[in-house]
Amino acid sequence: MKIDSVEFFYAAMPVVTLDADGSQDALLVRVTSGDHVGWGECEASPLTSIAAFVTPRSHGVCQPVADSVLGERIDSPADIARIAALVERNSMDLLQAAHTFSGIEIALWDLLGHRFGEPVWKLLGYERSHPKVPYASMLFGATPQETLDHVRAATIAGFRAVKVGWGGFGEEGVARDADHLVAAREALGPDGLLLVDAGQIWVTDVEAAAARIPALAAANATWLEEPFLPHAYGAHAALAARSQGVGIAGGEGAHTEHMATNLIDYGDVSFVQIDTGRIGGIGPAKAVADYAADRGVTYVNHTFTTHLALSASLQPYAGLADHRICEYPVEPSALARDITRDHLALDDNGEIAAPDAPGLGLEVALDRLGPYLHTVEITVDGTTLYASGNPAGRAVTVDA
Amino acid sequence: MKIDSVEFFYAAMPVVTLDADGSQDALLVRVTSGDHVGWGECEASPLTSIAAFVTPRSHGVCQPVADSVLGERIDSPADIARIAALVERNSMDLLQAAHTFSGIEIALWDLLGHRFGEPVWKLLGYERSHPKVPYASMLFGATPQETLDHVRAATIAGFRAVKVGWGGFGEEGVARDADHLVAAREALGPDGLLLVDAGQIWVTDVEAAAARIPALAAANATWLEEPFLPHAYGAHAALAARSQGVGIAGGEGAHTEHMATNLIDYGDVSFVQIDTGRIGGIGPAKAVADYAADRGVTYVNHTFTTHLALSASLQPYAGLADHRICEYPVEPSALARDITRDHLALDDNGEIAAPDAPGLGLEVALDRLGPYLHTVEITVDGTTLYASGNPAGRAVTVDA
Repeated sequence: MKIDSVEFFYAAMPVVTLDADGSQDALLVRVTSGDHVGWGECEASPLTSIAAFVTPRSHGVCQPVADSVLGERIDSPADIARIAALVERNSMDLLQAAHTFSGIEIALWDLLGHRFGEPVWKLLGYERSHPKVPYASMLFGATPQETLDHVRAATIAGFRAVKVGWGGFGEEGVARDADHLVAAREALGPDGLLLVDAGQIWVTDVEAAAARIPALAAANATWLEEPFLPHAYGAHAALAARSQGVGIAGGEGAHTEHMATNLIDYGDVSFVQIDTGRIGGIGPAKAVADYAADRGVTYVNHTFTTHLALSASLQPYAGLADHRICEYPVEPSALARDITRDHLALDDNGEIAAPDAPGLGLEVALDRLGPYLHTVEITVDGTTLYASGNPAGRAVTVDA
Repeated sequence: MKIDSVEFFYAAMPVVTLDADGSQDALLVRVTSGDHVGWGECEASPLTSIAAFVTPRSHGVCQPVADSVLGERIDSPADIARIAALVERNSMDLLQAAHTFSGIEIALWDLLGHRFGEPVWKLLGYERSHPKVPYASMLFGATPQETLDHVRAATIAGFRAVKVGWGGFGEEGVARDADHLVAAREALGPDGLLLVDAGQIWVTDVEAAAARIPALAAANATWLEEPFLPHAYGAHAALAARSQGVGIAGGEGAHTEHMATNLIDYGDVSFVQIDTGRIGGIGPAKAVADYAADRGVTYVNHTFTTHLALSASLQPYAGLADHRICEYPVEPSALARDITRDHLALDDNGEIAAPDAPGLGLEVALDRLGPYLHTVEITVDGTTLYASGNPAGRAVTVDA
């Protein structure tokens, strides 16, 4: 069967703030092949990602993503890999292509899962979906007391692991950061897993990052995430060499499999965090999971958005029993909650798992999205290349 | 003074083919600050790059490029670096941002050069612009005879160096590729510099690349360019270790300074090729040139488009006398020729240099571009975010 259509749904909260909260908008993707449908999500700028799908061709290896996807055969996981290679080749010089294709690739896995009545993790070759320990992902409070209150709320909700990040961490004094870490550890108790996200705040400054290591070690932080720019491998490795047992984590910015494996090989990270909505989808994420497992590096999902994205991010390492930690967006926007009808709730052990259900195992609640949806129209020389909801639009239907 | 406006001009040939010929379209950028104007060019998908400039904000670090540029102070090279850091931070999760900003950054250098009456290379700290040996950049012919004819034409035109690439090289048999290399060397004569571009054709397959090394060494090729995906550093290093004196070259895909320096550190390339229209502009390219020079790696520009892009690509290493090789698009499209009124012609020694004139030293012939220009309109919820040539459009004017 062939890929008949790729549709984008651009949803956003009424007000999008400057907070580092990636759940404020979403780009959903629906792929149709005959009677089969799959859903995916790009963790990316919606308008820019749509543009990369429909843009006029610049030359042979700067083609729109659509030209490597629409009309292609989709009967097996091998077809997904084949289409991914086409996109990588034909859109070599189109930087945004990886972000656009990520949502499409996820939707193709969901589609095949529904068609074959299998969870995606089974299509990936796993025999079961092992439970994960979700960590509540949240921003630092404005004061240590606020950080303490937020973390305590998460432990009361049943979380044994918490990640705090952003909110000015690393930007002011070392003592100020230490106060927040003490507060987080106090709220979490001695046994909870404490994870800290620096959000690239030190750019490439190893000394600035190293200055926070004593406080991180004293708080028994399991990892320090994204201390530097994602390509600054040398800085990551230099910090890892003096991190006093605090693991260095990173990888969410990876938009190719190799960017992530390079961070393992050259950045000496202990935890590699992959967003399937950016790296090109579930296939390259699974390759990174295999690579990490072979090298004693712990694979972790990166998810700050919807439960559709969460399920997609769990699939690549669902079968890796020893890779236990899982990011869980604990304070998502109303939009991010409303996008799926069902959710991945914590079980009695306070754990979650990729669903044992066809595809990604979640139903998209398109009927609830109306208030959030934006219409987009892109025209070149007066010709409409893309129009949301327009069945004549190129993004919606193609003669296969 | 402040940045008052950023305008985009999307030009393309009437027919854009699937050839790997990047001169088939262009995205020009004009930046205005008070009475001062500068021009730059993105080597990127035009529509997608425009979308990244005007897209609605997704969150604090996925902001449109415009929000880090419009209204910013621009009085010195330090301001350019400051704005670049803003874009890197505020558009961290917007993949296309680097390609969009590249043209803007170049235009800011051109603008400052005109304002101060200095060539860009002087603003970069160089005392003079050293001549470079341009190589004629061309595609392999369909037959060895065609390759021979093309290379011969370049030598007759005065070129002492030629690069051949793409056109099926690496996709069929080793013997077929060897025949083309013999033909190219025969046309070039024993003393000419022969460079070969594989265009990532072997993805990550080191053995497939290594199988071509004997023929490349026999043809005395100076370099083999882009054998693999740009992030596949391990494959680059493995090939470099067995390349029989043929240097490995790469870097044109770098969209950050670190991507390029990583290719030096971990990929063991002997030549690093930077496109200022992709890496974020002239500033990061200069940083890579300094880094390469310190490590005995030869810096080379990557340019397959206009002479505006060529001048921009020469600036970062204009003052490095020992870095002599320069890519020169010898068969550009009519569009690429028409974009500038003047051109960087070969001197009596068959060499070229970054112009000793203010800014980039070339005049954009906007009056000649009419037949090539495309109009673009982007609307979200019926509101126009971008419209070519519309002075009310956000991309054109801002209250500073």
